[in-house]
Amino acid sequence: MVAEILCVGTELLLGDIVNTNAAYLARQLAGLGIDLYTQSVVGDNPERLKESLAIAFSRADLVLMTGGLGPTYDDLTKETVAAYFGRNMRRDEHSYQRLMEYFAKAGKEPTPNNLKQADMPEGAVVFDNDNGTAPGLAVEGNGKIAVLMPGPPYEMTAMFEARIRPYLQKFSEKVLVSRTIRIVGMGESEVEYRLRDYMLSHLNPTIAPYAKQSEVQLRVTASAKTEEQAYALIGPVVAEIQEMLGDVVYGVDVENMEQAVVQQLKEKGLKVATAESCTGGLISKRITEIPGASDVFECGVCSYANRIKHELLGVSDQTLEQFGAVSEQTAKEMAEGIRRLSGADIGVSVTGIAGPGGGTPEKPVGLVYLGVSSERYSKVVRYLSGSKKAGSREHIRYSASQQALKLVLEAIRENQKK
Amino acid sequence: MVAEILCVGTELLLGDIVNTNAAYLARQLAGLGIDLYTQSVVGDNPERLKESLAIAFSRADLVLMTGGLGPTYDDLTKETVAAYFGRNMRRDEHSYQRLMEYFAKAGKEPTPNNLKQADMPEGAVVFDNDNGTAPGLAVEGNGKIAVLMPGPPYEMTAMFEARIRPYLQKFSEKVLVSRTIRIVGMGESEVEYRLRDYMLSHLNPTIAPYAKQSEVQLRVTASAKTEEQAYALIGPVVAEIQEMLGDVVYGVDVENMEQAVVQQLKEKGLKVATAESCTGGLISKRITEIPGASDVFECGVCSYANRIKHELLGVSDQTLEQFGAVSEQTAKEMAEGIRRLSGADIGVSVTGIAGPGGGTPEKPVGLVYLGVSSERYSKVVRYLSGSKKAGSREHIRYSASQQALKLVLEAIRENQKK
Repeated sequence: MVAEILCVGTELLLGDIVNTNAAYLARQLAGLGIDLYTQSVVGDNPERLKESLAIAFSRADLVLMTGGLGPTYDDLTKETVAAYFGRNMRRDEHSYQRLMEYFAKAGKEPTPNNLKQADMPEGAVVFDNDNGTAPGLAVEGNGKIAVLMPGPPYEMTAMFEARIRPYLQKFSEKVLVSRTIRIVGMGESEVEYRLRDYMLSHLNPTIAPYAKQSEVQLRVTASAKTEEQAYALIGPVVAEIQEMLGDVVYGVDVENMEQAVVQQLKEKGLKVATAESCTGGLISKRITEIPGASDVFECGVCSYANRIKHELLGVSDQTLEQFGAVSEQTAKEMAEGIRRLSGADIGVSVTGIAGPGGGTPEKPVGLVYLGVSSERYSKVVRYLSGSKKAGSREHIRYSASQQALKLVLEAIRENQKK
Repeated sequence: MVAEILCVGTELLLGDIVNTNAAYLARQLAGLGIDLYTQSVVGDNPERLKESLAIAFSRADLVLMTGGLGPTYDDLTKETVAAYFGRNMRRDEHSYQRLMEYFAKAGKEPTPNNLKQADMPEGAVVFDNDNGTAPGLAVEGNGKIAVLMPGPPYEMTAMFEARIRPYLQKFSEKVLVSRTIRIVGMGESEVEYRLRDYMLSHLNPTIAPYAKQSEVQLRVTASAKTEEQAYALIGPVVAEIQEMLGDVVYGVDVENMEQAVVQQLKEKGLKVATAESCTGGLISKRITEIPGASDVFECGVCSYANRIKHELLGVSDQTLEQFGAVSEQTAKEMAEGIRRLSGADIGVSVTGIAGPGGGTPEKPVGLVYLGVSSERYSKVVRYLSGSKKAGSREHIRYSASQQALKLVLEAIRENQKK
């Protein structure tokens, strides 16, 4: 089966919002083993929407649409799809009841516009919306299927997870399952070089590397009749790759580095504290993004000024004078200092030059020193991240935070070794 | 003139990356006063690319394309466009020289694939790439124009700014210029309600509100023969709107809240320090994202644990016992404490419940207390942000940081009043 994505919304056409819906739906289709060759965006214009829908169905059997299900006069996706399939619009009692309940709860009076959201093309399959007033729907006819979803990403994704994926599952002959191995500390080209033969010798599961922001991801994807069979194919391959790459693998199927850190700290009953200069709170921000971080994180100090490095973290004046704020010694004393101050098991520190200003020949923009201090493992790392690219201040700060979180994972490993 | 955007890349089709290029180019076209009705994405497949290009030109005079200019065998955008215009490919000497210089500098040997990047359709206008090896190009014929740009966003945007916009300017009859008024502390519906008559009474410039993450933006857009004329039309309208809305306007044409804060602190020669609980460093991270933040920011403390609130920030044990960590009193003492500890002119604090856990009937998830302390202005604000949405932990933390930065702007204003 061939699918196409058609997103409706003038905000997308004007570039006021980025089309994250298309990327999300594309990943979901890949997961369902449904082919996708084209994505399109059109504005809230009935004529052009009609034309785009016809073109989409000339190339595809399934068209996933987002947007244009709202209550206002220019929300016409449903009507346009009804016309394409030659269906009349009629009120869907179930959706009507839900709308009335929604407005009753909110203590508001629905306008006729609002109630329009309960009208559906005859014979449509209706999908409830748990996060908004616009239901989703599917219309099937002459071997073609249109699936309509609301535009706001959190409404659309929640509806897809709960109702659209199960609906689509029956149209997909095979199941595609992926697991993702996440790597920090080895570049994409080196990963590719080390695994080339192994990747070439595997067709199912396939192994594909992706360069992401300050990390590399290896996606291992298997195709099979059932999920169980697919996972059975993936398992040993993931294990072999971890064996081959070693410590640069920080997790499998984890959301991100911060989640891996919080999870492993919890498992080991350890706590971490952060002392940040050039990252300015980015590391503590990332750690505390994870629900329940309070079990493993109590304190972070963002010491931008030398005085604070000295007074709060106890970095010696001599160190600051002799070696400067951006130095191995300062990073070391910052990590020790925050560990002492917080009473945490692991102290991690970052000091560096994020730029664009402040660089010198000896200490260029992008130079970062990272320190970690713990009972059984202490270390300072010098790291120089590229500063060529546009947006490099953000890039330098983010890669520094990646390296710092990686040091925390190393400390966790070493502190559990008996 | 009608334009269309056609992005080429299998990574986009698979949803491995979000299509920020389309959003960027859509905004640029709007700025140039060139109409855009459709955006599309296709994979690196010559047949489907050829078909999509034909469809695009059946609807538009100008097609902006990104991606597929790389050195590998599946990068075929140039060749496909050449075929559409009936042109042969031939080496562009200027691009060839630049490539050779690039590889000489890098001390690498170019492969035949690399040199393929210097081949252009006959008669193409070539745009140098300052951030990569793939030049951009434009092909004109029979009233149609194709503009090809590299896929990596920082290469594409830099090329657009420097070379593509000037090239396109000559095709646009009018100039569109926008200024953006940024608002925190008033919802979109209230802004719309207050300005409805004013907005309806203005056709040039037009005034359009947009709800963004924890803020509202008003875009004022004028169309004229020259930029000067357009800005002359916009000026008085922006001033009147600021007059009408008052303090909720935190800036005009500023990048974001953090930039406005750093800029105004610099202008007034003031410094700020942060004490964060539930935001976990997000506020200091946002402030220090701005280059030169070190002039106005020296210190931030992320006090997740009560012990740290007490020991570092001097929040009294009695306050913590009697009112709890999430309370007006704690926020007040945190702001005073960080101001004392840092010696900054303005201390700002946040304590709250970001969830998903930890909520109670009295103190639900989403409840946040914010404090600001300064010589002439101190204040504590109770703020309850919606926690229904998916991803609400992030939402709660981000809106709390918006409110905190807004308090800093208030304090800056009050401390300059003589």
